[in-house]
Amino acid sequence: MVIDLSEVPITQGTGYPADFRAAVAGRSRQRVGNAAGLTNFGVNLTTLAPGAQSALRHWHQGQDEFIYVISGELILVTDAGETSLTPGMMAGFAAGVANGHHLINRSTQDAVYLEVGDRTWEERVEYPDDDLLALAKPEGGYYFAHRNGQPY
Amino acid sequence: MVIDLSEVPITQGTGYPADFRAAVAGRSRQRVGNAAGLTNFGVNLTTLAPGAQSALRHWHQGQDEFIYVISGELILVTDAGETSLTPGMMAGFAAGVANGHHLINRSTQDAVYLEVGDRTWEERVEYPDDDLLALAKPEGGYYFAHRNGQPY
Repeated sequence: MVIDLSEVPITQGTGYPADFRAAVAGRSRQRVGNAAGLTNFGVNLTTLAPGAQSALRHWHQGQDEFIYVISGELILVTDAGETSLTPGMMAGFAAGVANGHHLINRSTQDAVYLEVGDRTWEERVEYPDDDLLALAKPEGGYYFAHRNGQPY
Repeated sequence: MVIDLSEVPITQGTGYPADFRAAVAGRSRQRVGNAAGLTNFGVNLTTLAPGAQSALRHWHQGQDEFIYVISGELILVTDAGETSLTPGMMAGFAAGVANGHHLINRSTQDAVYLEVGDRTWEERVEYPDDDLLALAKPEGGYYFAHRNGQPY
């Protein structure tokens, strides 16, 4: 089915513990994959306002991620440093590769990208810069914990 | 990792039986997801020359598909008829929905799009307009058969 963007809600907000929410305050998403009824992977059309981040820097144990830049400029931060991504550029982050990554909009204009991630079960998501883990719940989804495993 | 398109091979060809190959003769793809080491889903940057099709009209029993149009014009054909897709438009095809779909470039210019599909195991792919089935092999991948199950 063709996705009618005018019918897909624009959502903000995050499940992060309160101390970590500011980083993604300027992030808004349309869950276009869900809108088409997809269940095996998710696709979001995501906008980062100036200063916003895609997420805290993280890597997935079991899930692949892929991004395609539609407009604006994004800075990709990984263990290797920083790279500028411009429209038409793409990047992939393979499951289990222990190299935390995120996108930051350091420009003065909105930046828009597509992000794809699958829904393979995984035990945890690692956040190398923060006292944070995302741990899988038996019923699906995650809860957030300190690195010592203590839940937030 | 950032994908360097100059390093990703451009591939043509199809596993279709000989009688069906002409439809996709003008299709070329860069397997950008594979280039990034992704294994849970595939992402292709695909170009259809004028007259070419993305695939024979088909639907997947177990796998989701998603497309995002980057440039040019594509005609999406489903049971509901034909729809024009232009840059920035996207469509999703949920696993198990028995509505065959494909894209045709009826314009005089190349059309470019991203296509995403996961790798969930599935028994078969249906081709409602053709005497064709894709049937899963125990070791992975598919073989092509007539509707009566006789292999090509």
